[in-house]
Amino acid sequence: MFIIGELINGMYTYIGKGIGQKDKVAIQKCALQQLGAGADALDVNCGPASRNAVSDIQWLVETIQEVTDKPLALDSSKPQVIESGLEVIKNPVIINSTTADPQKLEILVPLAKKYHAKLIGLTISAKGIPQNKDQRLELAAGIVASCTEQGFPIEDLYLDPIVLPVNVAQAQMRDILEVIREFKIISQPPPKSIVGLSNVSQGACGRSLINRTFLTMAITSGLDAAILDPTDKDLMDAAISAELILDKHIYCDSYLEAYRKK
Amino acid sequence: MFIIGELINGMYTYIGKGIGQKDKVAIQKCALQQLGAGADALDVNCGPASRNAVSDIQWLVETIQEVTDKPLALDSSKPQVIESGLEVIKNPVIINSTTADPQKLEILVPLAKKYHAKLIGLTISAKGIPQNKDQRLELAAGIVASCTEQGFPIEDLYLDPIVLPVNVAQAQMRDILEVIREFKIISQPPPKSIVGLSNVSQGACGRSLINRTFLTMAITSGLDAAILDPTDKDLMDAAISAELILDKHIYCDSYLEAYRKK
Repeated sequence: MFIIGELINGMYTYIGKGIGQKDKVAIQKCALQQLGAGADALDVNCGPASRNAVSDIQWLVETIQEVTDKPLALDSSKPQVIESGLEVIKNPVIINSTTADPQKLEILVPLAKKYHAKLIGLTISAKGIPQNKDQRLELAAGIVASCTEQGFPIEDLYLDPIVLPVNVAQAQMRDILEVIREFKIISQPPPKSIVGLSNVSQGACGRSLINRTFLTMAITSGLDAAILDPTDKDLMDAAISAELILDKHIYCDSYLEAYRKK
Repeated sequence: MFIIGELINGMYTYIGKGIGQKDKVAIQKCALQQLGAGADALDVNCGPASRNAVSDIQWLVETIQEVTDKPLALDSSKPQVIESGLEVIKNPVIINSTTADPQKLEILVPLAKKYHAKLIGLTISAKGIPQNKDQRLELAAGIVASCTEQGFPIEDLYLDPIVLPVNVAQAQMRDILEVIREFKIISQPPPKSIVGLSNVSQGACGRSLINRTFLTMAITSGLDAAILDPTDKDLMDAAISAELILDKHIYCDSYLEAYRKK
């Protein structure tokens, strides 16, 4: 599975402070820690409090690129912030994210094409968060159609079903797992799937247990990628074991260590 | 999920010794420990070394029935051992198990009917262990057909896909998970599904992690029941959390404790 580390986000106090003080060491340490724990890519989010996200994201991207050439996921709801990050990108890049709204797709899909970026498409629109599987599939189909029309390769599209907290949307969790399976039948070649994992346990007790249980379930449903905290060892162990059971890497007695050293 | 505790099995040294010495306290302690940990029922197996399984199983059943009225799963490959246990059964009972062989089905299905027992049907035959999903489905369909012909209620049938060790049959694990889903479409009402869990990690390192990961994946596929070690707290936590995510019990902050006290 493709794992995007979630920790470089200004909403975390120490990262917010690192951005404010232009503390390269703090950001680079967080980047290397996540990659060392098994992340394949790093999310880059200035946080909700950033007043200068357009310049902050450039500083973040440049700071992280000094220590790694792994892919970066430029994470903002504002297309101008993403575009700003793209202007300084050297590493492989993921746009996180577009919604299913046509005005966003018309800006972000061409940007993704221009920069050879992968694109995360949230099954959400200006009408709000979908309430069931059919609404998620409808929004997903709209994103796929727009990408196809604009000549964006569907195998570079990651659909996100919008994972809701289990303690407020318990009745929707089964639908979310099912829709991850059904994303695969929207088109040929199929789009990929991704979740922003931590939201599943937002406000709940025993967050790590809920996170790793949901991730294991989503992997069973065919999940391709996740944005998560790779420094949660139990979570990574669960993901590695689930993919072992699906025969995605070969069993050996030290399979956990072997995966991490890959 | 319906959880059958696996620990009363003569292959475990202390249980084998308990059976040999007719040590009621040892057996009853093991029974109560498993029920206290959340088991809904108890497997009862004299073990491969028992020379007097026909009488040993009666002693085991009577000993356990002194301390609980929970269901017991009479576990033997020999129909005469199961029949012997049935002669003294007072608790609800599960026959563990029949294979897909007609000569076994012709003995065990009538016994299950006579004693109002639930029946575990292994998708295995005299030809050996199936090698893929289609072979498992074919054997499952044969068991369902025999039960239907003999007037046994299909909702009391638990199909077992035969879980193999991940370190020797890695390529089959995905099929096993898929077939658990597909068992449901064999008949209406659908049969239930069950796994003997511990076999998945036989001979592997990090057994508990592999067990709980596979169980979580099987629950995602619709698993109804499992024979497992309920005293493995991490395993039970995973099962409870997976069913929470599938909305099978209601979220509260103390959901793990609430489930165990149910």
